[in-house]
Amino acid sequence: MALPDGVVDALQEIVGFDGIRLAPGDLAAYGRDATPLFEAQPDIVVFPRTTEQVSAVLRLATEHRVPVVPRGAGSNLCAATVPLSGGIVLALTRMTRILEISGDELLARVQPGVTTARLADAVAAQGLLYVADPGSRTTSTVGGNVATCAGGLRGLKYGVTRNYVLGLEAVLPTGEVIRTGGRLWKDVAGYDLTRLLTGSEGTLAVITEVTVALLPKPAETGTGVAYFESLSDACRAVASIISAGIVPAMLEFLDQKCISAVEEYARLGLRRDAGALLLFGDDGPIEVVAGNLVRLRKICTEEGALEVTLADDVARSDALLAARRCSLPALSRLASLTILEDVTVPRPRLAEMVDHIDEIATRFNLRIATFGHAGDGNLHPTCVLDPEDEEAVERAHKAFAEIFATAIRLDGTITGEHGVGAAKLPFLADRLGTDQVRLLGRIKAAFDPAGILNPGKVGS
Amino acid sequence: MALPDGVVDALQEIVGFDGIRLAPGDLAAYGRDATPLFEAQPDIVVFPRTTEQVSAVLRLATEHRVPVVPRGAGSNLCAATVPLSGGIVLALTRMTRILEISGDELLARVQPGVTTARLADAVAAQGLLYVADPGSRTTSTVGGNVATCAGGLRGLKYGVTRNYVLGLEAVLPTGEVIRTGGRLWKDVAGYDLTRLLTGSEGTLAVITEVTVALLPKPAETGTGVAYFESLSDACRAVASIISAGIVPAMLEFLDQKCISAVEEYARLGLRRDAGALLLFGDDGPIEVVAGNLVRLRKICTEEGALEVTLADDVARSDALLAARRCSLPALSRLASLTILEDVTVPRPRLAEMVDHIDEIATRFNLRIATFGHAGDGNLHPTCVLDPEDEEAVERAHKAFAEIFATAIRLDGTITGEHGVGAAKLPFLADRLGTDQVRLLGRIKAAFDPAGILNPGKVGS
Repeated sequence: MALPDGVVDALQEIVGFDGIRLAPGDLAAYGRDATPLFEAQPDIVVFPRTTEQVSAVLRLATEHRVPVVPRGAGSNLCAATVPLSGGIVLALTRMTRILEISGDELLARVQPGVTTARLADAVAAQGLLYVADPGSRTTSTVGGNVATCAGGLRGLKYGVTRNYVLGLEAVLPTGEVIRTGGRLWKDVAGYDLTRLLTGSEGTLAVITEVTVALLPKPAETGTGVAYFESLSDACRAVASIISAGIVPAMLEFLDQKCISAVEEYARLGLRRDAGALLLFGDDGPIEVVAGNLVRLRKICTEEGALEVTLADDVARSDALLAARRCSLPALSRLASLTILEDVTVPRPRLAEMVDHIDEIATRFNLRIATFGHAGDGNLHPTCVLDPEDEEAVERAHKAFAEIFATAIRLDGTITGEHGVGAAKLPFLADRLGTDQVRLLGRIKAAFDPAGILNPGKVGS
Repeated sequence: MALPDGVVDALQEIVGFDGIRLAPGDLAAYGRDATPLFEAQPDIVVFPRTTEQVSAVLRLATEHRVPVVPRGAGSNLCAATVPLSGGIVLALTRMTRILEISGDELLARVQPGVTTARLADAVAAQGLLYVADPGSRTTSTVGGNVATCAGGLRGLKYGVTRNYVLGLEAVLPTGEVIRTGGRLWKDVAGYDLTRLLTGSEGTLAVITEVTVALLPKPAETGTGVAYFESLSDACRAVASIISAGIVPAMLEFLDQKCISAVEEYARLGLRRDAGALLLFGDDGPIEVVAGNLVRLRKICTEEGALEVTLADDVARSDALLAARRCSLPALSRLASLTILEDVTVPRPRLAEMVDHIDEIATRFNLRIATFGHAGDGNLHPTCVLDPEDEEAVERAHKAFAEIFATAIRLDGTITGEHGVGAAKLPFLADRLGTDQVRLLGRIKAAFDPAGILNPGKVGS
């Protein structure tokens, strides 16, 4: 679209000359996020610094029916921030103040553009823990984490972003500023808009302030690794761990293809003859962590692990974590296009799901490796291919459509932590049913009567 | 209202002859809940046994514009289930099946009419813990707990009902059956309707099935009691506990008036010369609980406790818990009308809030005692008076209006865990602002275009 007359001037009036960008290079950069194969062109990028500016921009946009796509770091993997209909990209990356960290109240209050890692480091310096821990933490923003309900490695024991959002300040598309929740662990005054906005992917309101709950930093953390002949064996060990009454802070897995790719990439000394690697960890009081790690080692051994090693120092522990954290870069270098997916199934069906993924990959002649969170059943099947090979890209799309359908059939979902965005919208009705998708549209309209906020995404 | 012609016959057709009640005694009984001073008269009480019956009843009600008030045990304290506009009370108390308990998946799936205690006992028998623990647990239903986002004694460490709802089956007022969430810890497909329905107090949809997350049962629980000269001293001890990095499973308090009432009622041997009693407890691995209780005792002593005792066996621990659990019955016997309220303030402002409550009680010449959850700042100021004394009842209403306003002024809320219902609706805009209240109305309309579901409550 072209912006209506006067809108650029009015936006510049609101945010100042240095708060807008119109150069072609900028428009191209803000037309993409971390999702491959999706791009579009905004008409302008706007960088507000205050809630009042956000409100004025939205009021103007609703008045002139101009699309607005709110955006943090753009590190999402579901094309949630691609401006499909052009208009305004509203980049919250200049609202970067940590407003408050309270050890007494176990909470922090931040502007949306603060990066996840900066918040985590700032609270850690005061002996506190911010739990949400997405893979993109060094670049992702807290506002973006809330908008996508970001997950991470600690889902089963600690939950995800939603479990730690106490309150929000948000601006409705029509310009009104609302405050939901607040500083309280218990508050049932009205519908739970805090949670409704969490994960709404910038389609209902623009988040301008976030209050999150913190925990005291655990005294100790510990890590170990177990190799298994097959992923089924690893999953049986996971089931035995849960049955033994242990809910560890981390239970991650890599399949054989991931192990190979990581080892080739990073030379960490991983066993390439293993069919699966299980990375486990716990945190808490020293005596509990030590005891649990020993119990985890024992269970893995009893379930037939080829080898189990506990990290005996922080350096070794960090090296093990690196194996998991570098799965994506290791796979990415195998080809120039990497499609990272995000299905979830009930934990007991994880091995079955990976078998299906492998079968689908073979049938479509694709390279798909899988890693993910064994504790909460969240898998990241990752396809590497040549983007110039259009026929292969087409096969990949078909393969993932089957993978999503399979996850749904196994009582799972099409996205565990990445979000719906433009990438998953075509599959949403398969998961939720058309009645529920229609209801999402009516809820969207209750917030955004003109439909200006992130059009073409969830709720559209 | 009178029901339109044919509606009674149609309802009987749907649920059978034994599924409806029309007798005046029944209508009177279902015109009240546990909230004093609120009553109304439904035209019929309907007891469905299946989701299909609920759907047919709602479709009929929408067609004929008949109000429907969904109801569990009616143990709520905010007049959430009083049928203000008559019509149908839809009692879910015959949908009482525990459909599944899975230790492998750490979840249970139940119909809405299962009582909280029955679910808790059933999962405990398998070595599991259902966390949500409202005071009404022996009579309240899981569906009602979800509808009100019920709290309890474990809020700070474990969170409330919302943190444990994984999925819902619910029927929209127009009859469509939707399933939200499921069996997964991570699922971001679509807006978070699971949490939106949790705490929506029967105004958006009727919950017909609930999937809840469970935890492994902690190996050990321990309890202790500390007496302080004043509530301020007790609150200072609470602050020191949190600052020491301890988040105990229980931190409950009674003010001096509560201690006296409980001691007169139950003769538990409580110290009546104390200004406040702090009940603390923790659960987890044996070594952690033992260590934490000793640390809690030390901190209370350092903060000037008159006396600190750790319960050395289960019987003594149960006796201490009884002191907290019987606060309400103990106060109730002081007069024939008991108004139990439910404000929350940030934890550091709890003593300040109780001082305000005491000042307001004195000024309005009322007997208000306060107990509650010190860990999460959730207070239950409780006024006992003679219902025949209309002038005193009027004073009580004025006093509570001041208490709500004070809680809001201290960054708190008008209800922490009881809900809005009809009782708090007049105060909701003070807490949320008119823009947000209007938004709640639009969300309500997105679910319930005919406005038949629980009219006169939140969203109206």
